[in-house]
Amino acid sequence: MAKWVYGFGDGKADGKADLRALLGGKGANLAEMSLIGLPVPPGFTITTEVCTHYYANGRRYPKELEAEVDGALAAVEALVGAKFGDAAKPLLVSVRSGARASMPGMMDTVLNLGLNDVTAKGLAAASGDARFAYDSYRRFIQMYGNVVLEIPHHEFESILDQAKDEQGAQQDTDLDAAALQGLVGRYKAMVQERLGRPFPQDPREQLWGAIGAVFGSWMNDRAITYRRLHEIPESWGTAVNVQAMVFGNMGEDCATGVAFTRDPSTGENRFFGEYLVNAQGEDVVAGIRTPRQVTIEGKKRQGLKEPAMEEAMPAIFAQLAEVRATLERHYRDMQDIEFTVQRGKLWMLQTRNGKRTVHAALKIAVDMVKEKLIDEAEAVRRIEPQALNQLLHPTLDPKADVAIFGRGLPASPGAASGLVVFSADEAERKANEGHNVILVRVETSPEDVHGMHAARGILTTRGGMTSHAAVVARGWGRPCVCGAGEIRIDYKSQTMSAAGVAIRAGEHVTIDGGTGTVFLGEVPMIQPRLADDFATLMAWADKIRRLGVRANADTPEDARVAREFGAEGIGLCRTEHMFFEADRIVAMRQMIMAGDEAGRRAALAKLLPMQRKDFTGLFEVMEGLPVTIRLLDPPLHEFLPHTEAEQSEVAAAAGVGVDEVRKRVIALEEANPMLGHRGCRLAISYPEIAEMQARAIFEAAVEAGRRSRHRVVPEVMIPLAATKKELDILKAVIDRVAGEVMRESGTRIDYTVGTMIELPRAALRAADLAQSAEFFSFGTNDLTQTTFGLSRDDTAHVLKAYIEQRIFEHDPFVTIDVEGVGELVKFGTERGRAVRPKLKVGICGEHGGDPASIAFCEETGLDYVSCSPYRVPIARLAAAQAALAAKSGQGIAKVAATA
Amino acid sequence: MAKWVYGFGDGKADGKADLRALLGGKGANLAEMSLIGLPVPPGFTITTEVCTHYYANGRRYPKELEAEVDGALAAVEALVGAKFGDAAKPLLVSVRSGARASMPGMMDTVLNLGLNDVTAKGLAAASGDARFAYDSYRRFIQMYGNVVLEIPHHEFESILDQAKDEQGAQQDTDLDAAALQGLVGRYKAMVQERLGRPFPQDPREQLWGAIGAVFGSWMNDRAITYRRLHEIPESWGTAVNVQAMVFGNMGEDCATGVAFTRDPSTGENRFFGEYLVNAQGEDVVAGIRTPRQVTIEGKKRQGLKEPAMEEAMPAIFAQLAEVRATLERHYRDMQDIEFTVQRGKLWMLQTRNGKRTVHAALKIAVDMVKEKLIDEAEAVRRIEPQALNQLLHPTLDPKADVAIFGRGLPASPGAASGLVVFSADEAERKANEGHNVILVRVETSPEDVHGMHAARGILTTRGGMTSHAAVVARGWGRPCVCGAGEIRIDYKSQTMSAAGVAIRAGEHVTIDGGTGTVFLGEVPMIQPRLADDFATLMAWADKIRRLGVRANADTPEDARVAREFGAEGIGLCRTEHMFFEADRIVAMRQMIMAGDEAGRRAALAKLLPMQRKDFTGLFEVMEGLPVTIRLLDPPLHEFLPHTEAEQSEVAAAAGVGVDEVRKRVIALEEANPMLGHRGCRLAISYPEIAEMQARAIFEAAVEAGRRSRHRVVPEVMIPLAATKKELDILKAVIDRVAGEVMRESGTRIDYTVGTMIELPRAALRAADLAQSAEFFSFGTNDLTQTTFGLSRDDTAHVLKAYIEQRIFEHDPFVTIDVEGVGELVKFGTERGRAVRPKLKVGICGEHGGDPASIAFCEETGLDYVSCSPYRVPIARLAAAQAALAAKSGQGIAKVAATA
Repeated sequence: MAKWVYGFGDGKADGKADLRALLGGKGANLAEMSLIGLPVPPGFTITTEVCTHYYANGRRYPKELEAEVDGALAAVEALVGAKFGDAAKPLLVSVRSGARASMPGMMDTVLNLGLNDVTAKGLAAASGDARFAYDSYRRFIQMYGNVVLEIPHHEFESILDQAKDEQGAQQDTDLDAAALQGLVGRYKAMVQERLGRPFPQDPREQLWGAIGAVFGSWMNDRAITYRRLHEIPESWGTAVNVQAMVFGNMGEDCATGVAFTRDPSTGENRFFGEYLVNAQGEDVVAGIRTPRQVTIEGKKRQGLKEPAMEEAMPAIFAQLAEVRATLERHYRDMQDIEFTVQRGKLWMLQTRNGKRTVHAALKIAVDMVKEKLIDEAEAVRRIEPQALNQLLHPTLDPKADVAIFGRGLPASPGAASGLVVFSADEAERKANEGHNVILVRVETSPEDVHGMHAARGILTTRGGMTSHAAVVARGWGRPCVCGAGEIRIDYKSQTMSAAGVAIRAGEHVTIDGGTGTVFLGEVPMIQPRLADDFATLMAWADKIRRLGVRANADTPEDARVAREFGAEGIGLCRTEHMFFEADRIVAMRQMIMAGDEAGRRAALAKLLPMQRKDFTGLFEVMEGLPVTIRLLDPPLHEFLPHTEAEQSEVAAAAGVGVDEVRKRVIALEEANPMLGHRGCRLAISYPEIAEMQARAIFEAAVEAGRRSRHRVVPEVMIPLAATKKELDILKAVIDRVAGEVMRESGTRIDYTVGTMIELPRAALRAADLAQSAEFFSFGTNDLTQTTFGLSRDDTAHVLKAYIEQRIFEHDPFVTIDVEGVGELVKFGTERGRAVRPKLKVGICGEHGGDPASIAFCEETGLDYVSCSPYRVPIARLAAAQAALAAKSGQGIAKVAATA
Repeated sequence: MAKWVYGFGDGKADGKADLRALLGGKGANLAEMSLIGLPVPPGFTITTEVCTHYYANGRRYPKELEAEVDGALAAVEALVGAKFGDAAKPLLVSVRSGARASMPGMMDTVLNLGLNDVTAKGLAAASGDARFAYDSYRRFIQMYGNVVLEIPHHEFESILDQAKDEQGAQQDTDLDAAALQGLVGRYKAMVQERLGRPFPQDPREQLWGAIGAVFGSWMNDRAITYRRLHEIPESWGTAVNVQAMVFGNMGEDCATGVAFTRDPSTGENRFFGEYLVNAQGEDVVAGIRTPRQVTIEGKKRQGLKEPAMEEAMPAIFAQLAEVRATLERHYRDMQDIEFTVQRGKLWMLQTRNGKRTVHAALKIAVDMVKEKLIDEAEAVRRIEPQALNQLLHPTLDPKADVAIFGRGLPASPGAASGLVVFSADEAERKANEGHNVILVRVETSPEDVHGMHAARGILTTRGGMTSHAAVVARGWGRPCVCGAGEIRIDYKSQTMSAAGVAIRAGEHVTIDGGTGTVFLGEVPMIQPRLADDFATLMAWADKIRRLGVRANADTPEDARVAREFGAEGIGLCRTEHMFFEADRIVAMRQMIMAGDEAGRRAALAKLLPMQRKDFTGLFEVMEGLPVTIRLLDPPLHEFLPHTEAEQSEVAAAAGVGVDEVRKRVIALEEANPMLGHRGCRLAISYPEIAEMQARAIFEAAVEAGRRSRHRVVPEVMIPLAATKKELDILKAVIDRVAGEVMRESGTRIDYTVGTMIELPRAALRAADLAQSAEFFSFGTNDLTQTTFGLSRDDTAHVLKAYIEQRIFEHDPFVTIDVEGVGELVKFGTERGRAVRPKLKVGICGEHGGDPASIAFCEETGLDYVSCSPYRVPIARLAAAQAALAAKSGQGIAKVAATA
């Protein structure tokens, strides 16, 4: 039979820290503190299983619960030496929620429970402080009335204000015992009037009311929203903690405070805490009185006059310092503690792992390894990979005053300020003049990449997290806010507006790509700094991980950034990005306009030296590390312009009439370009394109190999294949060109030919494809689009609604859909390796930089992940954590939930 | 060890008819005829395995071949009583190709082989006819020179013409023996001059040269093209038949002819043949002399004067009639035979199953069952399902003079003539005036459906076999030619032009949707007629098949046609087609323009009675047969107009500014609508749409049920689901509405809710979906698009090239891709039934009407196929054949290859 209630106190406990799932974080840690001999007010925890039972059974409790609560309550009474409802020595308790994951402020708390007209009098007598007793009683009625009886807060506030007016009191504390007693009477009258029944005087009725309110709060709107945002499963439930009250507000020998065992901002190993004399916990949080520092060092650092606890209560401080040491030794992590001093006695009310900045997290992890508190693996486990984003990008100064202009999706992290421009050309022009610019577009297309590269940041009003703008921006580490639908752009008048505010071209804006916010004007920034701790931790991660980490990089500059961040190769070089630069697009368009193969070959001959130069640069930067180059992928119409003026330019360059150009644009138009004439289908139609690209790759390999001592082994990747035959046709072209270049140069070139797996059919037929492909790279962006039949560009609003309605647990373009797309990745890997056991398998979609997806890649046995350069450190760390999880037998779900 | 050579003759044979794969069709039937005692000139067959060996080993023969040929040749010599190369009594042979499948005229033949300067003299002496001998010799040099020595035909022709000029001869037959002997000399001189070596005099050298030429011809361009068009595998190879020559041109007691054992046009059971006295087989084919009829009845029927064989050679005729009876009894099918009479003796040179019209095929099959030659199953097996198209649609009169305007894809069978119109509105207008019209568009969209319905035929210049135009046209049985890329349409000037010819609006054209041809003017037609034989055969097919056959039908008219063709239910009713009709589109657009749910509900309230009426009509026609109704599927922007004028109309109707409309059009635009906000995603966003549709369905079910004695059980189908959650959300709406309608009407409604499986993820997660869905219907059009990442509308040219390059064996939108899409269908079926064993599973994509795909559905255990009404008979027959194939253990490959 299940045990529903776990007691703790006086150096004993039924539970312990690792029963977090059952007891919630707070309950588990109270039990643990009690077990290790820290002074914890006695109490008991009603388990999360009761919560689950409650919701599974029409909000009814297990039948054994009442008896178990009675027993636990009796034990508390015995330890405290007071009795619940006793007129002379009443036991008072707090009732608090406590879930497995911290959900601060999301659920309800009731303090001072057990007070009624009789016990209040008893408390006044026992404490010798009638004001304290009635203040406690009126606070209890207010809290209970609000939380359990659901009477709006303002009903109590207005009575309180009236009482203060009558007394000429400024503060609550100016009310004396009699006034407070009067207030209690008025509160009770109001409750009676609103509910048609009196405020409950029976402490047991109060207790069950409060317990029910805590369980009920698990399903309130705030809690539901919080869980959705933090991906906490509803099934976890909350526990309820009932604990004997201790009071920090019974006089000058009383105090209450909170502390961190180390500095949560910097991670430095110094005790950092605040306390208030003669106060309740609420008072510290409410900020009515300025708290004092716990340590003298802290007092000095802050230039405060009020005495530190170390001076004012040296004995208590010594005890607290001892607790600090005990907790760090015991939990082997920085703790966030709450304590109360009641008449000279220290009580610990809570301990939990303290929240910290990523800088602090790194320092603490690295220091604790030095201090031999934890090992390297544990240090690696402790850092949330996504948090590294803060280290790698400038962030807004949190102290700055800001005016928000609008909001969109946090598409690429980092913050940037600059002049607003509305076209890629203008972005390039202004940037060349030395301005920082923010490129603002309804949406971007490959035609805009030169402007995107020139801009400091990108803002679009359409498109989701994986729209063109978002993908390109993340690849380059450019901050980007996408799909800011409330902002209207008018290209004609060169303005954008939202909520009645207009911004013209040339005015300043600031975007925060980490939060998706757009600010008016320039907001001050904090530049990123990479401490030694970062390098130390990353080195440990690299020792632990099994997965290789590569970067998606198209240019030598990208490649350089990627190597600085520790990339071990390039997993995806998108050759088409090279074709959009000013001089190249002309030749590219000539090729598209050519009526025959000869015309195409003439235009391709102009592109060849440029591509060769790009690849040579890339190979040189990578110094022999593997480089995967994907052949031309997008449909040709993406390279043709859509305005009349530009079409005229193209016509002039190609020596044809503008009508010709228009006709070609129309002929190439596609209703669904995502499913159109692209990928290897282009190279099958025009093998001369693949030929030119292969030649550029192999000639560059020879050249880069000659210049440096590094042997270049290019990996040529064929996109969008669905059949072995496609690979065979193009592999024949590539092999022929390789042979030609080898003969011409007299140099042996080692290379491999592989394919993207980005269509469901390719994954299913992987055994065919692997007969011809020497490596696979899962293009999970397109694979997700085709598997779900969902265009990432068109369905930002659908995705948003689906996530809100929990149809999707995650955005499948951010975190891989393990059940659907993941099965195809597994099929692809298993079936491919069945025919070619040494098949190299990687992933180059956006998922390659997502920790939860990386955990999946580890489990599936991929060889490497490839992501944008700025995510490489995140991927390295996530890969290490995935390896640790795999070693310890934890599943994907576990990793995903904590990532 | 393999046996490479199979002899036949004199009532014996090494082979027999069922060794067709090894001996080719001709060789197998020669052996069979010899075995059953028919007079066959002796000879031998070199097997197809020699051909395979030849190509697998660098064009070298198996080493045992020469000895086997020598042995077989000796046996022929013994039977004929003549010797190869003998001066006095020379054996002459023919060398012919003979593949497993008939490839008429695709490969090479050499006759009279064995002649040289010496044996020609001997033949002259032996036959007593020098002219015959030298005519045979010069024909041999000409044939051998062309086929084996690869000397162009005209080289011989010019020498022949010169000889005729010199002799003043009009015809070849005017040349006498001496002139022919002289011609032989000149031929040999020319060969010597061109090749630098003499024409081979050694008969054995001649024989091996001819054998090599036949094997070589397997890989000539003509043969390769033919195989591609007829899907004959290269690996089959050809056999070589070497057979003693017999001559029909040695005098008036000689003859040659061809005959069918029944009438190949009508199928009537009468002997139908033609012959020529004193002629060679070539002469019949060449058409220089008009052949005579074999039977007196035939002579009379054709009104000829020349005596029938029955009169001129009564003994031979009697023998031939006996042969006819023997062959039909033996082969149990109508035979196409070739015979030669040499000096009063009948020789059979070939028999094979005769080609016939589909009318004849039906009659012969049904008659032969009556005659107890075959059973019903065999009769069902004999009809090619696709051929039924000819029965169901008008066809062009083959005798008509035609002028071809252009060509496109044969998108929907049947022929139609009419006035050219370039818009859907104009089509409707002209049709209402009583004209037949052909709607000509670059491509069609759902906005055009009213015009498509009004038109007799549809012609588009873009889009493939599964484009919107093609799909809609097939559904309605409208002839359609698609993707006629060479035709340019100019909407402005209301003309279309191709190859310099222009057609204006209002002029006549004719399209043949069975061949994809467009003709100038009106071409006379033959109307279809359905004979009793058709009904008889279909009834047999229905007894045999296991698969249900339903139709895709949107209107009561469609449904009526479907039932006439034998549909057992509706597998797909596309509700959106109903929204495009004049009065409805206004309300539909009001709904789309509505800014909130209330506005949408108001517009939907107008649509409700119309939808209810549609469904009531459908249910009434179907009289209790199952009807699957799919909820709204296409993205909303498909319902909005794109011209300014129409947008103004919509604005007026919706009571908003035209700017509003334009904004909405732009806001709804999608880069990839196929992967956009459509299917169940619409109903998730706007549950009120699903609610209205569900209400219309259930109210119609109640109404139709009340009016008739048939119980209506609607099947409500949710499109484009990828997750169980989507189904759950919409099923809740449908169930709620069903409950409401039941309460309101006081009638119990039985219904089921199921889903389309048209996304790879849906197939993979079928076990989830089947928990909520009571039936699955595979939407293999979209499933093929997403699995291949290939838009059917955009990639007609890609598909064409892929099929030509044999990257695809079939068009995957016509015949299901068994390996890729098929695996998903299997997963979907197996995984779905694993959780819901009684899950009803069907297919409603275009593949539901394709025989090879139906064979796959049979193997995969689907419950039914659903196709356009006009394909229902084809599907019934194909399903029966698939059931027979499954019973006999034949695989899909076999069925696919013969379908």
